[in-house]
Amino acid sequence: MISEFCLIDRFFKRSNLNNAVTLGIGDDCALLATPQGYELAITTDTMVENIHFFAGCEPYDLGHKLLAVNLSDLASMGAKPLAVTLALTLPKVDEGWLTLFADGFFALAERFSVDLIGGDTTSGPLTLTVQAFGLVPNGQALKRSVALPGDIICVTGLLGEAGLGLKIKQGYDCKQPENALKRFNRPDPQIEIGQALIGIANACIDISDGLTGDLGHILYQSGVGACLDWEAMPFSEEVKSYIGATGDWMMPLTTGDDYELCFTVSPDKTGKLENIPHTKIGVIDNHAGLRLNKSGQIQLLQDKSFEHFS
Amino acid sequence: MISEFCLIDRFFKRSNLNNAVTLGIGDDCALLATPQGYELAITTDTMVENIHFFAGCEPYDLGHKLLAVNLSDLASMGAKPLAVTLALTLPKVDEGWLTLFADGFFALAERFSVDLIGGDTTSGPLTLTVQAFGLVPNGQALKRSVALPGDIICVTGLLGEAGLGLKIKQGYDCKQPENALKRFNRPDPQIEIGQALIGIANACIDISDGLTGDLGHILYQSGVGACLDWEAMPFSEEVKSYIGATGDWMMPLTTGDDYELCFTVSPDKTGKLENIPHTKIGVIDNHAGLRLNKSGQIQLLQDKSFEHFS
Repeated sequence: MISEFCLIDRFFKRSNLNNAVTLGIGDDCALLATPQGYELAITTDTMVENIHFFAGCEPYDLGHKLLAVNLSDLASMGAKPLAVTLALTLPKVDEGWLTLFADGFFALAERFSVDLIGGDTTSGPLTLTVQAFGLVPNGQALKRSVALPGDIICVTGLLGEAGLGLKIKQGYDCKQPENALKRFNRPDPQIEIGQALIGIANACIDISDGLTGDLGHILYQSGVGACLDWEAMPFSEEVKSYIGATGDWMMPLTTGDDYELCFTVSPDKTGKLENIPHTKIGVIDNHAGLRLNKSGQIQLLQDKSFEHFS
Repeated sequence: MISEFCLIDRFFKRSNLNNAVTLGIGDDCALLATPQGYELAITTDTMVENIHFFAGCEPYDLGHKLLAVNLSDLASMGAKPLAVTLALTLPKVDEGWLTLFADGFFALAERFSVDLIGGDTTSGPLTLTVQAFGLVPNGQALKRSVALPGDIICVTGLLGEAGLGLKIKQGYDCKQPENALKRFNRPDPQIEIGQALIGIANACIDISDGLTGDLGHILYQSGVGACLDWEAMPFSEEVKSYIGATGDWMMPLTTGDDYELCFTVSPDKTGKLENIPHTKIGVIDNHAGLRLNKSGQIQLLQDKSFEHFS
């Protein structure tokens, strides 16, 4: 049986890409030298079998997604990805599974020059934790707590694609399922856009738990409210068809896993968004709660975002 | 039912103790400003129920030990602890359990002025991952790979105490079980000694997987061998009694969880160890493998350290 030591060497040890990584995998700690003028942004996300992913899902996709969800948190702060650690709890050592998992993981890591600098492998129920590190210019990180009344609310990409992907997995019959399934299986973290928003956006968050829940965090932490415009929402034809067929118009506003960015911009800075793909979907205000203008009627949106333990 | 958001606020949000933590819990990322002249040492360790701890173990002890095993990795690099993140996977929200777990965790965190700066809570089989961050002066971290032939091998504290604690838990009848059980349940990371060894020690590692296994890592990564002296080993009277009663003399050399430091020092620097509690147990050499001089006979020690998946 392959040992923990061999497992790391064989599947997870690569050359380091960043000078800031002064010691990588193989000691009690890794060492990072943060360049002057930068803060280190740190995030961690865990994925558990049967909670965050289906048993038997493609290990390549899982390796990609586990890294992507963490890089997405870096993107939402405007940070440039630098390095990650990986804590793997595995029921058994399946070399074929590990090879594919590592392939998916490193394909994305190399795309953004991210070094795997350490980790831990233990036996137990399949549980995967990544910790990600990024660099952000001193004092310029995009926080949740700084939205101001009057700010325009924007999102990148399309809403509800990953949610539709989940519905397809659960049996919904979609004519063109490819995009939705790709977004569900291999989401793209919006790294370049996050960095481009530094100095432009006020508040920013990534849409991991659904637009209403995540925008709700911005509202709560900034002490503001907001009104969204249903007509402005960026939905694909497939999501529109889904809503038409099911009447479930809340789906694209409340399901998670989109990993797009939701950010707010002062009206005098919207001109600076020219080269940044985005859609304006509403306005921050001083009224209570998160509301939606749908066909001229104002609805108070319930927070139906994914809550663990509920 | 309490939400993930409330759970963090209620059990795990405290005031930050360190200026280097520029943004703590509550955003997509935390932010750290590494002071000039320092590298950031980073480590992660996972503990899984029924693998690393018994089901039903005291949550206070578990909170302590989860943090201690990570701080021990910082100690082994000579780093000063700064901050940690915590990824909790819980089968259910048990508020009494969480209160005690957080009490144990923060009692140790506050002792070393460690800030909890972020984390993730998910539902699933009980699995706990801590990531720890410490500061170490540029270029001075204590690595595994720099032991030299002629170096004196030293350990802090006693060997085999936690292993004896485990034997007691499994039914061994010990006259004075208190110390061994305390070391098994609430190990002390050797933070002060690790920092004191900067500029004195060559290689250093913490004994988490047993002396032979962990010293084996130093030997392998430094490309050297070693011979240990059985007569020099620091054993308590209880461990000596255990060996006398069972004949199992390998136990204190191979069982993990001691969280003492094993380090090597050039012979001309041993004078500098005067104020550092330690025991000299052997010498690094150019011969193959890890050997033990026991009653004048040289034995090749098998690596019987704890290996996951074996």
